[in-house]
Amino acid sequence: MNPVATADRKTLVRALAQVLPAHALLHSEEEIRPYECDGLTAYRQLPLLVCLPENEAQILAILQICRRFNVPVVPRGAGTGLSGGAMPMAQGIVLSTAKLNRILTIDANARTAQVQPGVRNLAISDAVAPHGLYYAPDPSSQIACTIGGNVAENSGGVHCLKYGLTLHNVLRVRLLTMEGEVLEVGSEALDSPGFDLLPLVIGSEGMLGIVTEVTVKLVPKPQLARVIMASFDDVVQGAQAVADVIAAGIIPAGLEMMDQTSSQMVEPFVQAGYDTAAAAILLCESDGTPAEVEEEIARMSAVLRNAGARRIAVSATEDERLRFWSGRKNAFPAAGRISPDYYCMDGTIPRKRLGEVLLGIAAMEKTYGLRCANVFHAGDGNLHPLIMFDANQPGEFERAEQFGAAILELCVEVGGTITGEHGVGIEKIQSMCVQFTRSELDTFFAVKRAFDPAMLLNPDKAIPTLHRCAEYGRLHVRQGQLRFPELPRF
Amino acid sequence: MNPVATADRKTLVRALAQVLPAHALLHSEEEIRPYECDGLTAYRQLPLLVCLPENEAQILAILQICRRFNVPVVPRGAGTGLSGGAMPMAQGIVLSTAKLNRILTIDANARTAQVQPGVRNLAISDAVAPHGLYYAPDPSSQIACTIGGNVAENSGGVHCLKYGLTLHNVLRVRLLTMEGEVLEVGSEALDSPGFDLLPLVIGSEGMLGIVTEVTVKLVPKPQLARVIMASFDDVVQGAQAVADVIAAGIIPAGLEMMDQTSSQMVEPFVQAGYDTAAAAILLCESDGTPAEVEEEIARMSAVLRNAGARRIAVSATEDERLRFWSGRKNAFPAAGRISPDYYCMDGTIPRKRLGEVLLGIAAMEKTYGLRCANVFHAGDGNLHPLIMFDANQPGEFERAEQFGAAILELCVEVGGTITGEHGVGIEKIQSMCVQFTRSELDTFFAVKRAFDPAMLLNPDKAIPTLHRCAEYGRLHVRQGQLRFPELPRF
Repeated sequence: MNPVATADRKTLVRALAQVLPAHALLHSEEEIRPYECDGLTAYRQLPLLVCLPENEAQILAILQICRRFNVPVVPRGAGTGLSGGAMPMAQGIVLSTAKLNRILTIDANARTAQVQPGVRNLAISDAVAPHGLYYAPDPSSQIACTIGGNVAENSGGVHCLKYGLTLHNVLRVRLLTMEGEVLEVGSEALDSPGFDLLPLVIGSEGMLGIVTEVTVKLVPKPQLARVIMASFDDVVQGAQAVADVIAAGIIPAGLEMMDQTSSQMVEPFVQAGYDTAAAAILLCESDGTPAEVEEEIARMSAVLRNAGARRIAVSATEDERLRFWSGRKNAFPAAGRISPDYYCMDGTIPRKRLGEVLLGIAAMEKTYGLRCANVFHAGDGNLHPLIMFDANQPGEFERAEQFGAAILELCVEVGGTITGEHGVGIEKIQSMCVQFTRSELDTFFAVKRAFDPAMLLNPDKAIPTLHRCAEYGRLHVRQGQLRFPELPRF
Repeated sequence: MNPVATADRKTLVRALAQVLPAHALLHSEEEIRPYECDGLTAYRQLPLLVCLPENEAQILAILQICRRFNVPVVPRGAGTGLSGGAMPMAQGIVLSTAKLNRILTIDANARTAQVQPGVRNLAISDAVAPHGLYYAPDPSSQIACTIGGNVAENSGGVHCLKYGLTLHNVLRVRLLTMEGEVLEVGSEALDSPGFDLLPLVIGSEGMLGIVTEVTVKLVPKPQLARVIMASFDDVVQGAQAVADVIAAGIIPAGLEMMDQTSSQMVEPFVQAGYDTAAAAILLCESDGTPAEVEEEIARMSAVLRNAGARRIAVSATEDERLRFWSGRKNAFPAAGRISPDYYCMDGTIPRKRLGEVLLGIAAMEKTYGLRCANVFHAGDGNLHPLIMFDANQPGEFERAEQFGAAILELCVEVGGTITGEHGVGIEKIQSMCVQFTRSELDTFFAVKRAFDPAMLLNPDKAIPTLHRCAEYGRLHVRQGQLRFPELPRF
């Protein structure tokens, strides 16, 4: 691709100025500097310019102009993403949906809300709270991140074991393709006639269209929630306890694990009351009616005790529950206090391999000479290793990157995946070469072209080219591809 | 398309005979006659020939040959589908997956089973029963239908309100594309890196690839299940009761409605003990631990009583529970007893519009001069109107078809969809013109081409061409498409 082949920056600005108010078009370096990266701050790039459209018609006009001038478009929500999905391109524009921030309708009976993409995740829950409802997915960034960004990255949170990711909580999405077509995907019904394009759009990292409206599912606020804090003498025992809880047929509202590095890192910062002498801490939440919670807390406590928990505490009040969670929620800021830089990975593994993978990561700490804290969604096997490093020490950033990639390879090796809830973006694009076969990556590209034949919408994200995988030196050949018992005589 | 343009039937048979054992290749009229239709028996067509491959290598060889000779391939499971998804083409082959019927692995701890596509739905539950597990989706045809067919049509059942459709119970699918590529889509993790192709494949009616392996999720058998039978004096009241149950925050294991036509039709046949004097009967099931069931049955009974139920009975034994369900499960055969022919529709509407749509269907009975029984998954708004007619009466079949199409248009009009769990196939392909805009249908075709550029895999199903919609005279322009507040100055 040769972007902006047919227009220079001035021509583009002139065309965009005709369809956007002046305040919706940022082009001075000072104005566009804040857009040079998202939450993956290690990579920075100034875009050509930034558009802040205020309605769907303006988005359509921007797309038409960029299509005509062959200019890549990088969509952006609040810029809180952790995998660089909103990382700008030097020759492309950034299209921010921040100004499309209205809640359009709330239907308390049907338990749905229709919102614009720039509405913040927490703003939805705030708006529907008077109806006793909330929007379930709760990424750590929920105070800032937008629902459009959540759709792009299929965001999760600490409660997604029971309540699901964005995918499971969005019913319908309206989007504009790079070709200027309006698509409405999904429905309030269980089945979708024709191909089910909604799950394809969710988690597509802005590569298929610009989302202009999202209909979310709302859930009733549980009457009560309580959390168990259980500590274990070694991580493998803690990991086994996680498997035991699930095997007992319980689906906790949250099931999180922190290793000792994490609890010792966070405890001085938040005083959550963590057992910092324990090798691992589990937080197991139950929510529902008081009777349900009481019964589930009793069952979970029994399972944890049988699994060898050395100490079990149950939150007695809502304040205490929030205090138990505060350590978990502040793990990232706490890492920032003890290490100049940190790198948060995101991979998923089968629960039964948890213990083994944690030991593998511990071994890698020695290999790469860097510390790693593990604080993660244990219930759904979603790891978040926090690799700590100092970017001012020569080579440490590169070692952190290699450490992260090695963790993801280990995830794939044990039958897991290279994402949990942060998306692929640019951060994990190389690891896609390990996760998927060439046929599968080619199918991704074919699907991308089905929506965006000009390949202008957030290009070079998430799906690696053959060339990139060859450079990475990890062309994946899955065992299964060699599984044909005999070649057909033909 | 001009199929078999480059080969006659004999050449094709010769090529296939080189890669398939003789018993896996049917070509005499006597042998292929049973494949002339699926469960949509009103449409019949003999295929060119039928292949019954026994392993993935043979499927690959068949696809390669058909690709070379430009011959369409219609995949088929057990042929129980109700929308004609497995309807043969005169110039195409039928590829049956019936002989790939092995259960490959059962992992009771992870609660998954990996099976071949020809395994029957109920055979999975039978195989995992010793572990106290079962496979949740239970279409009426579950004794005969295959998991491959379930994947193709995203099949449901009476318990999908609580347990979901096939989509929600399949973790991973391995498939071969028409281009001979192996794809593995989905994972056991919540999130999928890259585009999430699994939900795209599920419900794709055999148009994207031939499924060769399916990994299903298993769920623990509930300790207890009980069902409430509640009768109402009018259907609108019954419909409101459905909405009330859901609004009370209850998700019953099943929530089914039968109108008086249905109960009077089925009662003499099965003696389920239905209140045939009632305008509508609801069946509300609760499952779980005895304590959970007791509590939920009490809450549901209270809601139903408040909603005006004239009679409430709760199953006291498992035998009685099965008897209450027997009427519901035998509604189709019962229709066959009182009417020479019947036509079962399948559409989904928002629950709050249930009463109104039932009245609309009642009015249509007069318009089309045909009786219609309503027996359906009320909890998820999935209607199954059974239109009764006599194909030997001139014009009745056409009137039944028009009646069905009118019901689907009404579903779309109230914000619903034209499918619930039966797929689109050939039966509802015209109604797709009503459901979707041209842009959306074009996107479906583009996605189809991304997997199958030669358009050979089950062509002419599910997605209508522009030409077909023009002929049908129902080119849909959704209100939303005209919603731009102002055209951009451009």
